[in-house]
Amino acid sequence: MLRNNLFFKTSELKFISSYARRMNDELNSGDIGYYHLIHTSLELIDESLEFIKDKTHIKNIVLVGMGGSSCGVKALQNLLFDEKENDRELLILDNTSSHSFAQILKKLKLEESLFLITSKTGNTIEVVSLFKLIIAHFGIEFSRIRDYFVFITDRDSKLHKEGENLKVKTFFIPNNVGGRFSVLSAVGIVPLCFCGYNAKALLDGAKQCFEDFFIHKKEEILQKAYHYCTHKNANINVLFSYGDSFKGFNEWYIQLIAESLGKKQGYKRIGLTPIALIGARDQHSFLQLIMDGPKNKTISFLRVLNSKKSPVIPNIDFEFLDSSSNGVSLHNLLNAQCEATMNALIAENLSVDLIELDYLDAWHTGYLMYYYELFTSTCGIMLGIDTYNQPGVEIGKLILKKILDAQTNS
Amino acid sequence: MLRNNLFFKTSELKFISSYARRMNDELNSGDIGYYHLIHTSLELIDESLEFIKDKTHIKNIVLVGMGGSSCGVKALQNLLFDEKENDRELLILDNTSSHSFAQILKKLKLEESLFLITSKTGNTIEVVSLFKLIIAHFGIEFSRIRDYFVFITDRDSKLHKEGENLKVKTFFIPNNVGGRFSVLSAVGIVPLCFCGYNAKALLDGAKQCFEDFFIHKKEEILQKAYHYCTHKNANINVLFSYGDSFKGFNEWYIQLIAESLGKKQGYKRIGLTPIALIGARDQHSFLQLIMDGPKNKTISFLRVLNSKKSPVIPNIDFEFLDSSSNGVSLHNLLNAQCEATMNALIAENLSVDLIELDYLDAWHTGYLMYYYELFTSTCGIMLGIDTYNQPGVEIGKLILKKILDAQTNS
Repeated sequence: MLRNNLFFKTSELKFISSYARRMNDELNSGDIGYYHLIHTSLELIDESLEFIKDKTHIKNIVLVGMGGSSCGVKALQNLLFDEKENDRELLILDNTSSHSFAQILKKLKLEESLFLITSKTGNTIEVVSLFKLIIAHFGIEFSRIRDYFVFITDRDSKLHKEGENLKVKTFFIPNNVGGRFSVLSAVGIVPLCFCGYNAKALLDGAKQCFEDFFIHKKEEILQKAYHYCTHKNANINVLFSYGDSFKGFNEWYIQLIAESLGKKQGYKRIGLTPIALIGARDQHSFLQLIMDGPKNKTISFLRVLNSKKSPVIPNIDFEFLDSSSNGVSLHNLLNAQCEATMNALIAENLSVDLIELDYLDAWHTGYLMYYYELFTSTCGIMLGIDTYNQPGVEIGKLILKKILDAQTNS
Repeated sequence: MLRNNLFFKTSELKFISSYARRMNDELNSGDIGYYHLIHTSLELIDESLEFIKDKTHIKNIVLVGMGGSSCGVKALQNLLFDEKENDRELLILDNTSSHSFAQILKKLKLEESLFLITSKTGNTIEVVSLFKLIIAHFGIEFSRIRDYFVFITDRDSKLHKEGENLKVKTFFIPNNVGGRFSVLSAVGIVPLCFCGYNAKALLDGAKQCFEDFFIHKKEEILQKAYHYCTHKNANINVLFSYGDSFKGFNEWYIQLIAESLGKKQGYKRIGLTPIALIGARDQHSFLQLIMDGPKNKTISFLRVLNSKKSPVIPNIDFEFLDSSSNGVSLHNLLNAQCEATMNALIAENLSVDLIELDYLDAWHTGYLMYYYELFTSTCGIMLGIDTYNQPGVEIGKLILKKILDAQTNS
C-alpha cells in the first residue's frame, strides 16, 4: 500500500469538493487519454509479449526517445532493479550528446539489438537524428530496417507513415495521451514487456490509485493539490526521495510538474517549480537552503518502508569514530535520516508531507506514478490552465530550424 | 578559454567595485582556504603520485564521501571522460542506499581495490557506516585496514586520530577549506592523481580564473553576482548545461549555491535557489515552465564549443521524416539547440547569460569550477551572509541520533 501523510493544515472538504467533481468531468469526457490506460493498455501486454516471444537472439533493447518518450521508462528501470524476469538489457538514448551516444553504441552488437524509436509526432528532431545515426553506424540497408527497429508513435503520425513504407512493426500511443502522461501507454508497456518487467502489476497498482481517488474518494491528492495551488508564497515544490533508485523517478516528476503546470494565461504567468532531491545524499547539499533560506518551498518526502536486502552496519567500535549506527541496517539508517530531516523541517513550520511505499515493486510504482499524474491534473484544474499542452517550447524549435538551415546552406 | 556573455543590463562598475575590494580583503585575510589551493595543492600531486607509484595491483579506486567530499570528484569524473591516463576505475559511494552499495561492492575484488574514506570532520555518519560495512563485507582484519584504505580529512579530526591508531595513510584538507569548496584540495586531487587525470592542468585552469578576477579585474562574475543578488523577483537560478557530461557538475553547482547562499540572518531568511538542467534533454521537460511560467528565474547556459569526436548525422532522406539536421554533426546540433533555446528565452526578456568553454578538458574544468566558487563567494558578500558555514543541517543530525538511540536500545 501507499500512504500519504499530510503535515500541514488541510481544508474542509466542502470547499474543495467541486474540484473533485471537475476531475470526474474530465475523466468522463474521454478527452484525456491517460485516465483510461489502466484498462486500454492491458491488451498491449499480450501484443508485446507475442512480438518478442521468439526473438531470443535479442539481448539489448535500446529505447530512443526524448522527454515523455523516455523519462517514465528510465524511472521504471531505476525503480524495478529487483523485478526483472529476463536478461535483456534496457538502454536509453535520450539526448543529442555525442559521448553518451558513443558509449551506448559501442556496447551493442547489431544482431543482438532491437531499437525502439519512440516519438508521438514523429517530428522530434533528436529522435530522427539518432535514428539516422544508428542506421549509418551499423550500415543498415533500408530493406533491413524492419529487422532491427520497432516504432512507437501516434496513429497517422509521420513515424507511422514512414513505418508503413519501411514495413516496421509499430505500436500505437493513443492520440489523446500526452507525452508526459504516457508511461502506462505503449511508451512504457512495450519496453517493460520486452525486458521482462511485470507490466500487469504496474497497471494494477495504477488502477488501485484510480479507484482510491475516483471511487473511494480518498482526499490526500485533493488536499495536497489545493495546498500547493493556494499557498502562493511556496511555489517551489521539493520532492525529497530517499534512495538512489528514485533518480529516474525524480526526473519524471520534474517533467510532469514543470511542463504541465507552467503556463501563460492571458497576460498572467502561472506555474509551480519542481525540484527533486535524493536522500540521504542531498541532505549534504540542498537541505541547508530549505532549512534557513526563504520559506518559498513545500517538501514531499518519499520513502520505501521495507527492503528485501540491506546489510546491517556491524558492531565495530573504533576509539574515535561514531558508533550510533552500529547494529542498524543500512536501509533503516536511510529511513531514520528521512524521518529526522522531515521532523527538522516540520519544526521550522514548513509544509511537509510524507509518501510511504510498503515495498519497491511494480505494483507500488504503478500506484505512485498514477498518484502523481492525478495530482498534476488536479493542480491544473485548480490553477485554471490547460495541463496537457506545451506551447512555450515551439518557438525554440522554429529558431533551431533557422539555425540549422543557415548551417547546412553555408 | 572560457567566455561569459551577459545578456542582461549590467551596472556601472563604480557601483559594484566595493564588492571587488571586499573579495580582495577576504582573499588577503587568509581565513578562507580555497582561494589558496591553486598554490598549496601543487605539492599534493607529487605526494599522491608517489604513494600510488608502485601499487600497480590496484584497479579500482573507491571514494566514500558525502556532499562536498564526493560531489566535486563526480563532476570531474563525468567531465574528463576523455582525459584519463590509466585504466583504474573510479567508483563513488555517496549515499546510504542499499542497492547502490551492493552494486558497487559486487564489482570489486579486495586485492585490487583502494578505498578513500573522505570526511573533513570524521564524524559523517554515512561515511563511518559505509567504512564499517566495507570492512565487514570483505572481512578485513583491523591490522590490515592500512592495506586497503586511505583517509582524507582535516588535521586533528577524529578520522585523523583513528588513522594514527590504524596506521592508515592520511592526506589532509586544510581546516579553513569548506567541504563544498574543497574540490581542488586533497578531496579532489588525490583521487584524480590515483586515476590518471591531469590534476596540474586543473589547478592551472583555476589559477587562470583567479588571475582574471583578482589581477585582470574581469568583471563578468561581479556583474552576474550583482544581478542575481539584486534581481529579487528572480531568486531561482537555472543552470542549463548542454551535454550529458555535465550531470555531475550540475549536482556540484547545486550544492555550492544552495548550501553557501541559503542562510538565516537574524529573523530574515536569505537564499538563491539553484536548479540545474541538462540540454538538449530537458528542453523536453523544464523549458516550458521557464518560457511560460512566472518570471522568477535567471538562466545560465553552459556549452562546449569544440568536440574531438562527434558523428555527423547522415544525409538520409525519408519520405515523411525531418531532414533539417542532415549533414550536421551531433555536437553542432546540440550547440544549435542551446543557441535556439537561449534566443527564445532572451526574446521573453528573461535574464540570460552564456558560458562557453573552447574544449572540455582539465584546464577548462578547473577554470569553470573556480569561476563558480568565486561567483558564490561574491554573492555571499553581496548578500551579507556567512557563505562558508551550514548551521541549518545540524538539528537534523541531532534528531537522527535520538532516533538511532531509540532503535538500538529497543
